[in-house]
Amino acid sequence: MNIAIIGLGLIGGSLGLALKRAGQASLKITGVPRREETIKLALQLGAIDEGTTDLAKGVADADLVFVCTPINLIIPIITEIAPKLKKGAIVTDVGSSKYEIVSQAEKLMPKGVYFVGGHPLAGKETTKLEAAEAGLFSNRTWVLTRTSKTSKKASEQVEQVVGLIGGLVVGMEPKIHDHVVAAVSHMPLAVAAALVNTVAGEEQKELMTKCVASGFRDTTRIASGDPILGVDMFKTNKKSVLKMIGAFKKSLTNLEKMIREGDGEKIREELTKAKQFRDAIYNEKPAG
Amino acid sequence: MNIAIIGLGLIGGSLGLALKRAGQASLKITGVPRREETIKLALQLGAIDEGTTDLAKGVADADLVFVCTPINLIIPIITEIAPKLKKGAIVTDVGSSKYEIVSQAEKLMPKGVYFVGGHPLAGKETTKLEAAEAGLFSNRTWVLTRTSKTSKKASEQVEQVVGLIGGLVVGMEPKIHDHVVAAVSHMPLAVAAALVNTVAGEEQKELMTKCVASGFRDTTRIASGDPILGVDMFKTNKKSVLKMIGAFKKSLTNLEKMIREGDGEKIREELTKAKQFRDAIYNEKPAG
Repeated sequence: MNIAIIGLGLIGGSLGLALKRAGQASLKITGVPRREETIKLALQLGAIDEGTTDLAKGVADADLVFVCTPINLIIPIITEIAPKLKKGAIVTDVGSSKYEIVSQAEKLMPKGVYFVGGHPLAGKETTKLEAAEAGLFSNRTWVLTRTSKTSKKASEQVEQVVGLIGGLVVGMEPKIHDHVVAAVSHMPLAVAAALVNTVAGEEQKELMTKCVASGFRDTTRIASGDPILGVDMFKTNKKSVLKMIGAFKKSLTNLEKMIREGDGEKIREELTKAKQFRDAIYNEKPAG
Repeated sequence: MNIAIIGLGLIGGSLGLALKRAGQASLKITGVPRREETIKLALQLGAIDEGTTDLAKGVADADLVFVCTPINLIIPIITEIAPKLKKGAIVTDVGSSKYEIVSQAEKLMPKGVYFVGGHPLAGKETTKLEAAEAGLFSNRTWVLTRTSKTSKKASEQVEQVVGLIGGLVVGMEPKIHDHVVAAVSHMPLAVAAALVNTVAGEEQKELMTKCVASGFRDTTRIASGDPILGVDMFKTNKKSVLKMIGAFKKSLTNLEKMIREGDGEKIREELTKAKQFRDAIYNEKPAG
């Protein structure tokens, strides 16, 4: 199977490393980054078998194409490669919002070429190839979106490849996916950034930074991610993000009211509910 | 110097271990827990030299008393020990809210006995003695509050002992302290708990828990702490906590507006501001 990976950052690079580690002799990995230097580095890291910066050339022989670029480039790239794909080829992506991408990508596919939207729930604060890891997707959820237009065969093929690198496939409709990631990823980023900016806006911010302990560090960690990724999340998943920010504000206002009323028993119940829900998630899941 | 530690949980136990590790032959550590079994365990761990569950006996010879109980017990205990202290003794505590405790404790001190409010910015999710660590306070901020009534000599003596175990003393007025910890510790707990409860209240919560990655885990970590501690924080530091929740909601609403307007440039600036402020904190601080 010929696999093309367009975009060799953290995700594309880790995907290449993971596929190479899976060690199937029949897999050929072609890397298609924007810059020549990236090909050299990816070859050195052992993340690809060969590379080109020419999109058309990169996908010409591909059975499966992974588009691993920032969200805002996914549709422009799919638009460009669609007419160059061979019959039976499958295109998938790793964008963290799905409804817009999937609707547009499905329309762009020529007859006999298939699109399956994807989103691996894995990442780091950096998006650089240098940080790529073969184990990044191992035991992590990898969403594949399914619509009425999704080819079952194509979807199964992507699922098989994701399984090769240890990803746990969960199928979802694009709209459901966007709502889900708004809740557990995009809205929490807004919360973490707002938390940091609250402290940054305080007169006593110098003293506050002296007094931060591990709690503040962890609660705000995602606010140190690449701002461009955040902008992409908020722009491409606006509706669900706003809905979840609204739900969060309601939940916080609820707790605020209990604090204002000084009702210790109600506060304890509210905190216990949170603790139990969270403990149930992380006692069942491997750390990562 | 005779040091009494009242309350042998994570903080009291770690304090004992740290003092013993400091290895000053002239220090004698008396542990005063509530239960006999705790004395046995603390002796086994090497956190104390001797122990008693009798408060009066425990503090009779003490030059310095650390009250390391949950917040709601600090004032009752100081009330009980105040008349039993020897002339020149110093009492300090480790409660995470200071204004109420310091005002009351200062009034409770007999002539010739001194109170200095304290708050080490260190902790874990558990409050158990079993999790105690000699290094818990090493290179961590330890706030000592100063008021017009604080004895300079007493404050310096506490500072010296905190320095022995690696704590970095920062002096603050109690009200300022409470505002600062509301911003970096108490309000973030309210945010983390509200975040978990937002997801817990969603119809798609099952799917959401399948899709949580490291971002959600870290952002909500403090919501897994002991609910009782949270209740204490919110009740004893109510005014500052409410003020900081208000400031946070304003900051989030500001970002929400940018997302609603789809203004990528403004969102990028807001996220960049957060990233830079946070990176500046954690690039200067050792992890912990």
